[in-house]
Amino acid sequence: MDTNKQRRKIRIAVDAMGGDYGPPETVKGSVMAAREYGVEVILVGDRSAIEKELSGCGAGVQSIRVVEAVQKIEDGEEPAFAVMKKPNSSVALATRLVKDGEADAVISAGSTGAMMVAAARYLGTLPGIERPVAGGPFLGLSPNTVVLDLGANVGCQPYQMVDLAVVGVVYARTFLGIENPTVGLLNVGSEEGKGNEQAKEAYLLLKQSGLNFIGNVEGMDIPFGRANVIVCDGFIGNILVKYSEGLGRTIRKWLTSELNEKLPDDMVENIGRQIYRLMSPAEVMGGGPLWGVNGIAAIAHGGSRAEQIAGTFRQVITAIESDLAGTLRKELERVQSNRNQINQ
Amino acid sequence: MDTNKQRRKIRIAVDAMGGDYGPPETVKGSVMAAREYGVEVILVGDRSAIEKELSGCGAGVQSIRVVEAVQKIEDGEEPAFAVMKKPNSSVALATRLVKDGEADAVISAGSTGAMMVAAARYLGTLPGIERPVAGGPFLGLSPNTVVLDLGANVGCQPYQMVDLAVVGVVYARTFLGIENPTVGLLNVGSEEGKGNEQAKEAYLLLKQSGLNFIGNVEGMDIPFGRANVIVCDGFIGNILVKYSEGLGRTIRKWLTSELNEKLPDDMVENIGRQIYRLMSPAEVMGGGPLWGVNGIAAIAHGGSRAEQIAGTFRQVITAIESDLAGTLRKELERVQSNRNQINQ
Repeated sequence: MDTNKQRRKIRIAVDAMGGDYGPPETVKGSVMAAREYGVEVILVGDRSAIEKELSGCGAGVQSIRVVEAVQKIEDGEEPAFAVMKKPNSSVALATRLVKDGEADAVISAGSTGAMMVAAARYLGTLPGIERPVAGGPFLGLSPNTVVLDLGANVGCQPYQMVDLAVVGVVYARTFLGIENPTVGLLNVGSEEGKGNEQAKEAYLLLKQSGLNFIGNVEGMDIPFGRANVIVCDGFIGNILVKYSEGLGRTIRKWLTSELNEKLPDDMVENIGRQIYRLMSPAEVMGGGPLWGVNGIAAIAHGGSRAEQIAGTFRQVITAIESDLAGTLRKELERVQSNRNQINQ
Repeated sequence: MDTNKQRRKIRIAVDAMGGDYGPPETVKGSVMAAREYGVEVILVGDRSAIEKELSGCGAGVQSIRVVEAVQKIEDGEEPAFAVMKKPNSSVALATRLVKDGEADAVISAGSTGAMMVAAARYLGTLPGIERPVAGGPFLGLSPNTVVLDLGANVGCQPYQMVDLAVVGVVYARTFLGIENPTVGLLNVGSEEGKGNEQAKEAYLLLKQSGLNFIGNVEGMDIPFGRANVIVCDGFIGNILVKYSEGLGRTIRKWLTSELNEKLPDDMVENIGRQIYRLMSPAEVMGGGPLWGVNGIAAIAHGGSRAEQIAGTFRQVITAIESDLAGTLRKELERVQSNRNQINQ
């Protein structure tokens, strides 16, 4: 092991208030991660609410500390605007801990928009990246296929789709160990010239990007895993993520009741869990880093329970240990310089 | 029974060459439909190829005749352009049979774009509709939810999304028997103001449309069936259809192998068939009419086998018997006149 890495613990700041089940599940998940991965956790939010949850998690959580966030993003507020107006809200404060060198990464299960704004404002984005990116392996069925953007970038310019592809390639190489990942553009047909204006232009740019671009892919190519990196606008990615999650939940429920009297309970439970995992992005992803940020800021799915929160920690630790932001910066610069040469 | 309707047989023209499995499966499906529904079928395409398939279908198919199409849309051609240049291609010729009063409807499993162009050119569209619409019940899981557009309209203007909604409402009322169908706009969040420019503007127009608009719905609301009519751009609808189909096929395969040694073969087969039906739009839809056309022109999924072709016949017969084009014309005029009054 690298002794440098072991010199001090990895420190991760968590927006304890974010998500549908924060603080109870965000705190529980953070405690799980602190115990399992030996990291230091900084829980940011309403101190009394957090400490109440911590006291329910038993003893032995010395590596967790609490930072009070005195501002709160209210239910009716547009989260992305609120985070600008409230630098002492939990998500903004947790992100500033990274900026100030007090934490190595930040995790939030709250609004993706708010996390994006906080990350862009306090950490900044990498060269050529206007907005941070959300993505990752999409389905248990096709674990070697990364889909992005999953909701952070709604209404991309065609050249941004190329930067998304670069991000996906670095992801697939670093997290999935694929040397030369194939890249596909999600579209309504496989032929060149298909789709809306965004897709038509992105196709041309991807073709001359120097990436391992295999052309358009269609909806079915996601479960079939026909490319390692599948690029789409965040508007579509977000709908696909939520669609898959809803399908996974309803199919699991149907299958459980269908098998209930035919197989033993534990077998039914096991099959239900597996099928949900195969179909549900949230389960597979457990959250992931917002890519394109000059630092590590990760989102967990809004409906995350403790296990998904802990899963996000796992990804964040990998990101920190492999210097992902640095690696991505280099790749972006390479593709962008290639693009500039073609344009000259 | 209405004796008027029984006076003469319904006549349906079929583009026998269209689809991944035409002519073999288009011919077989047409023969099934002719026998089951007592309709007259006109198979349009390469006479010798069609007659070869017909001879394999056994005797007793007197209600089927063949019309030779001397032009062929080649593999490399852009289908929508090719159909303009080749009025004697199978899809164009079959559509002209409707225009000329020789058939009551046309069915094609070929390119959606080609069918759209042929329908728009030879039959025309209803007032305010620029391009025909593809849609229908989307999932077996939510049989009372219609999603549209499913690929015919890529890159909609916001006001076209309202016309899509009207089409969906008429569909749900006529085919599903829902008196006052709820309408949702597929988006990345439930709040007003979410999404891309198209979605933001469509939201405002839908709100003042006089339809039973319940606001934005998200991806998960499709399997949950949270609205009777879910409107989206054809770019997204097409990706969702194909994604669902791919998921249905891969999940069915996984589940079959998972259950194989645990349950009797026929039970496994039955569960596999059911889960595919619950998840796969193609299975549920079996194709459907292109809406907004001044007449009945239906598409079947490109991968249709004989059963799906026959399923499309069933929908087409309902459309003919209930004078759908006339009903839709009235509804479109009502909403459009409402819109004009607000704009004045």
